[in-house]
Amino acid sequence: MPPYSHRVPLLVQKFGGSSVADPDRIRRCAQRAYDARRRGNDVIVVVSAMGKTTDRLIELAGDVTPSPPKREMDQLLATGEQVTCAVTAMAIDALGQPAVSLTGPQVGFHTDGSHTKARIRSINEAAIRKHLGDGRIVVVAGFQGVGPDGSVTTLGRGGSDTTAVALAAALRAEECEIFTDVDGVYTADPRIVEDARKIERISYEGIIELAAVGAKVMALRSVLLGAKYNVPIHVRHSMLPDAGTMIVPETAEMEHEQVTGVALKTNLGRVFIPSLPNTPGVQGRIFAAIAEANIMVDDIIQNEITGTGAGGDTMNVSFTLEHSDLADIKPVLDRILSELDAAPGRGVGSAGWGAVRVDVGLCKVSAVGVGMRSHTGVAARMFRALAEAESGGGGGGIRIQNITTSEIKISCILAKEDGERALRAVHEAFGLGRPAQ
Amino acid sequence: MPPYSHRVPLLVQKFGGSSVADPDRIRRCAQRAYDARRRGNDVIVVVSAMGKTTDRLIELAGDVTPSPPKREMDQLLATGEQVTCAVTAMAIDALGQPAVSLTGPQVGFHTDGSHTKARIRSINEAAIRKHLGDGRIVVVAGFQGVGPDGSVTTLGRGGSDTTAVALAAALRAEECEIFTDVDGVYTADPRIVEDARKIERISYEGIIELAAVGAKVMALRSVLLGAKYNVPIHVRHSMLPDAGTMIVPETAEMEHEQVTGVALKTNLGRVFIPSLPNTPGVQGRIFAAIAEANIMVDDIIQNEITGTGAGGDTMNVSFTLEHSDLADIKPVLDRILSELDAAPGRGVGSAGWGAVRVDVGLCKVSAVGVGMRSHTGVAARMFRALAEAESGGGGGGIRIQNITTSEIKISCILAKEDGERALRAVHEAFGLGRPAQ
Repeated sequence: MPPYSHRVPLLVQKFGGSSVADPDRIRRCAQRAYDARRRGNDVIVVVSAMGKTTDRLIELAGDVTPSPPKREMDQLLATGEQVTCAVTAMAIDALGQPAVSLTGPQVGFHTDGSHTKARIRSINEAAIRKHLGDGRIVVVAGFQGVGPDGSVTTLGRGGSDTTAVALAAALRAEECEIFTDVDGVYTADPRIVEDARKIERISYEGIIELAAVGAKVMALRSVLLGAKYNVPIHVRHSMLPDAGTMIVPETAEMEHEQVTGVALKTNLGRVFIPSLPNTPGVQGRIFAAIAEANIMVDDIIQNEITGTGAGGDTMNVSFTLEHSDLADIKPVLDRILSELDAAPGRGVGSAGWGAVRVDVGLCKVSAVGVGMRSHTGVAARMFRALAEAESGGGGGGIRIQNITTSEIKISCILAKEDGERALRAVHEAFGLGRPAQ
Repeated sequence: MPPYSHRVPLLVQKFGGSSVADPDRIRRCAQRAYDARRRGNDVIVVVSAMGKTTDRLIELAGDVTPSPPKREMDQLLATGEQVTCAVTAMAIDALGQPAVSLTGPQVGFHTDGSHTKARIRSINEAAIRKHLGDGRIVVVAGFQGVGPDGSVTTLGRGGSDTTAVALAAALRAEECEIFTDVDGVYTADPRIVEDARKIERISYEGIIELAAVGAKVMALRSVLLGAKYNVPIHVRHSMLPDAGTMIVPETAEMEHEQVTGVALKTNLGRVFIPSLPNTPGVQGRIFAAIAEANIMVDDIIQNEITGTGAGGDTMNVSFTLEHSDLADIKPVLDRILSELDAAPGRGVGSAGWGAVRVDVGLCKVSAVGVGMRSHTGVAARMFRALAEAESGGGGGGIRIQNITTSEIKISCILAKEDGERALRAVHEAFGLGRPAQ
């Protein structure tokens, strides 16, 4: 082991775009980095572009050409984080603490050549270790790396979170702090559920499911990276001193929590295909066509209608998606369903498949928890809570339209007017609220 | 010689900040590069930061700290040119011509480590040659390089001109085109001298003297570099198709021109020290003190008053400087003259040196021409033209207050109200005007 390693605990601090939106806020972030250094840590700071900078750069490119080459887009966008990292290093220096800013290429943050969505290959520790060893705080431009040909690459949406967690993994940091404009992850959205509680510790799996079912937390990709390398991630508010939420490897203790949090996803529509031949490959063809049209599908539910095991089996399939994607789905489905109809050897004419039905105005309430795996009765408790809650549509009890589950999640599709009431009922049923004072 | 060299003529095109100030102008610059490529050239484009970008970045740094570290200033400012070069590459690509943008570090534009005013050490041809060989237009971020430690460096004021000329020298380009918001170098300022003529060809020496005496042309440093490597420099208007002014090595033909152009420098003040001991080192001490105070002196004139060759010799010294520096000069002179007075072994008391006199409201008219060296009577013709011109002060003839000359330049200090009249008179006396139609 080199003499440097573990001399002092290494902390990675990431500040997002709203946390560095103006010189005042940059100075506050600098102060946080300075304070961490004074407490005896080595500190790496990762910054995003200031405020709306990235949007402005995208607009500038759009003013010049409707189809900018991706390589040039990366060369352009990377400047946003470079500005913040130089200015942040200046602000730290102004506090009397030596600092140095490094761009992705200067770090040696190596990626593949997939411009605008590059994958990390390796990170060169040497440059950063050298500066840390010389007593500097190292400020790294987030979101960017360098491709095999020396071009700048960018990591795609949420890229600065990924930069921070990757650096924490590569340099074996004690912790990766993600500073943002919320003070942590909650058991439910506090704007809807009044007694929602900040979650102190949550597993990677839990946060991944929570994010997937609609909780706005951090970029999924960076959590997956954290899980892979066991990097403790601390989500905190950039303007508040309080501890936020620690995202950590699952522990034995955690197994006892049945449900960690609940989440509501609104503005969902649902497409229902009442009858399809259930022959191998049909689902793949449908959802490949939808993916090629860049439409994101939320949940997929399939039920078999006739189950003889012979060639004539049929099924129904429904899937949910965001309202904003509904307009685009119709032509895609028309095309793929008529192609399936025309395929030789299919026994069912298009008339027999039934008309595709589209519903709007739905929402999804989900309960997530690693502890579900070892507890029976979680689903039952959720369904009972919904049945006992008062429906917005009247008639007593909230009607569940669809159910989907994973190992650590239960989701129910409901009418949108029932969403917030359902969220509160489920939150209470699992005892997630703050204890009475 | 590698097979690539001289396959096609190489052209370097540099576009300044006002030429790339918005997406429309960037598209026009892209069109110029595209046209040059269609004409069969290999093309390297060098760009400055868009419009006032650099000023805005300096302001941002100033909002964070009054004394930003120079290394971080360079990391910050370099982003301005990086934005332009990515967007310019996009605009060229949109015309159907492959292009690639390169930052200073990506080029391998190596400099020393003097941040904010780095000196060029070497330029790596390989990366640029590769792209040119693959049929691309190479768009290079001006003003920046990479220091010995991998940090971004910047070249200081006029840095993008320097980048362009240095690339033209290193890659042995046919020509370096400097596109700007004037259409060339004139025999005099056309706003003052109505029949001023665009100069088609001028030597490096000529342009250097013209720039020094007040003509606003291009950055001196880049002309000096062009002169060193014999790079033909073509100063042109970025929005007009016309040829501009070629700056070229001196030719035998040029020797025949006595005067290439005339220039007027206004807002000059003059400091006159009537009596000083003329002992070795006195001038050095005075002007070193002035330079340390960051005051730029224009011309220095010294006359000996008593010339016995003994220790008691005295001289008078005067020098001109910009009005804006006059306020700062007084305390510097007070200090250095009292130090000289206090120095042991000096025979003259401060009273004997006479009071320092400061004049304001002066100007300087200069005639510049390489041909002066081989022609007698140039100075006499200039003095006669001034004597025969009508003075603004009345009384017939313009009074010359000081004269300074170099090998290829004659300058006269005049009252400011005589400046424009004098400029026209001298312009006419040397036959520089457009021939009558």
